[in-house]
Amino acid sequence: MDAEGTAARGTTEPGLEGFEFDRATAVEPVGDGRWRGEIRPEWTVGLAPNGGYVVAMALAALSRSLPHPDPFAVSAHFVSKADPGPADVVVEVVRTGVGVSTGMARLVQGRRGRALVTGTYGDLSAIEGPTAVRGEPPDVPPPDACVKVEGPATPEFVKRFDLRLTEESAAWARTAPSGVAEMLGWIRFVDGRPPDSASLPLFADAFPPSSFNVVPSLWVPTLELTVHVRARPSPGWLLCRFQTRYLIDGYLEEDGELWDEGGRLVALSRQMARIQT
Amino acid sequence: MDAEGTAARGTTEPGLEGFEFDRATAVEPVGDGRWRGEIRPEWTVGLAPNGGYVVAMALAALSRSLPHPDPFAVSAHFVSKADPGPADVVVEVVRTGVGVSTGMARLVQGRRGRALVTGTYGDLSAIEGPTAVRGEPPDVPPPDACVKVEGPATPEFVKRFDLRLTEESAAWARTAPSGVAEMLGWIRFVDGRPPDSASLPLFADAFPPSSFNVVPSLWVPTLELTVHVRARPSPGWLLCRFQTRYLIDGYLEEDGELWDEGGRLVALSRQMARIQT
Repeated sequence: MDAEGTAARGTTEPGLEGFEFDRATAVEPVGDGRWRGEIRPEWTVGLAPNGGYVVAMALAALSRSLPHPDPFAVSAHFVSKADPGPADVVVEVVRTGVGVSTGMARLVQGRRGRALVTGTYGDLSAIEGPTAVRGEPPDVPPPDACVKVEGPATPEFVKRFDLRLTEESAAWARTAPSGVAEMLGWIRFVDGRPPDSASLPLFADAFPPSSFNVVPSLWVPTLELTVHVRARPSPGWLLCRFQTRYLIDGYLEEDGELWDEGGRLVALSRQMARIQT
Repeated sequence: MDAEGTAARGTTEPGLEGFEFDRATAVEPVGDGRWRGEIRPEWTVGLAPNGGYVVAMALAALSRSLPHPDPFAVSAHFVSKADPGPADVVVEVVRTGVGVSTGMARLVQGRRGRALVTGTYGDLSAIEGPTAVRGEPPDVPPPDACVKVEGPATPEFVKRFDLRLTEESAAWARTAPSGVAEMLGWIRFVDGRPPDSASLPLFADAFPPSSFNVVPSLWVPTLELTVHVRARPSPGWLLCRFQTRYLIDGYLEEDGELWDEGGRLVALSRQMARIQT
């Protein structure tokens, strides 16, 4: 492939270095397209680091290897469960174009591959063309009228966020599954870090699985996650809807829509996962 | 990564070798994980080979390098336009597990990378678990009551199929764009080849872009395509719905649902593409 390694810019914009997300996804170059980071135990659910977090760390290395600032389309395949501890990201720049550039980032621990992430980057501030929007943000009560996810059983990962679910979405945890495979609500970083295009792939995997409202399960490991970032979010809350329409023989898709406080669609996501009971 | 190259089985099941799709995606091993095929001019729209076809050729090599028969999740990033002519597929097996295996296939022509395809394979006949389906097949008139896509201006690629669109979906070609970014209809191979899990990624990119019914354009090049194969289709027609809800600044997602004649969801697809006027 016609790879040119024009190393470019940082993901972490000035002023973001002090936030938890940026510290937890920080990577340092160690040469030959290899970057070193550390998977933090604070970003796990049980013993497993969250998939969106693993992707965000891979993208932290990839974005610093590509000239464009925003992840337009990100595809991740999770090949084995990562562990807290040191992790390397091996980046390969596949093509650098005028409008978009593409590269791969593999997150590895020792000799074990954990995630295979492909990203096509561009510049969301530079695109132009027709707009025709048919969808709209879901009708959700304001954050303070939703159910705040907190309490002693809250996984470490979830504590990184201020997460508010609608009554129906929170039903699985409070009473009984609602029967509707949907999670609706608001999210933001608990430490006040504003959302940006680099953190949207994390937010796309940060809600409880929508299947919890249909089939109680211990874990819903993700096999594949795709995120399309469509706009840079404004500061504040993200309004999100995740839903599963097809749970078939234990496998499911989960489709996400993420909106910013200005009512703008900022990302679409889809993942394939598997119910593990 | 813990790669073991346990070369396995063929994609082309006995009895399929004579069909057009199987001939057009045939690849031969030339050593070191490299396979050689030929991009046929019959599978182009204008000068560009269809993206789903390029993916299908990459998968023809990948599937023969993995022990599992069905592509559960396929992600493709298109880095440059392919040309008719010889093409190599460079395969890397990333992980072979009991339930699923993952690998990468890059389609290259000379020194130019064309497509980067990651696939997680499994065995659709061996999975089990809960089922809860909320979606249903669209309400579409039978194939003979739909509009057959044919005529002198039909691209070579489209002639590989028997494609029937609803009146509203065909509006862009017959009168004026319907204003609804949707393509609904039936499809099957024109030579009678039955659909299978290997050909579903092709079918997921075989309809005209749903944006044609909103914004007339010359070309809607795909940047990224993800396909989830959820069941092996029964022989016969596939019933498909493709829709775009968010066309923003010239970029769009297109979401597809593919059903078999038995009313079973067999695949979900999503692509990110760009309107080129």
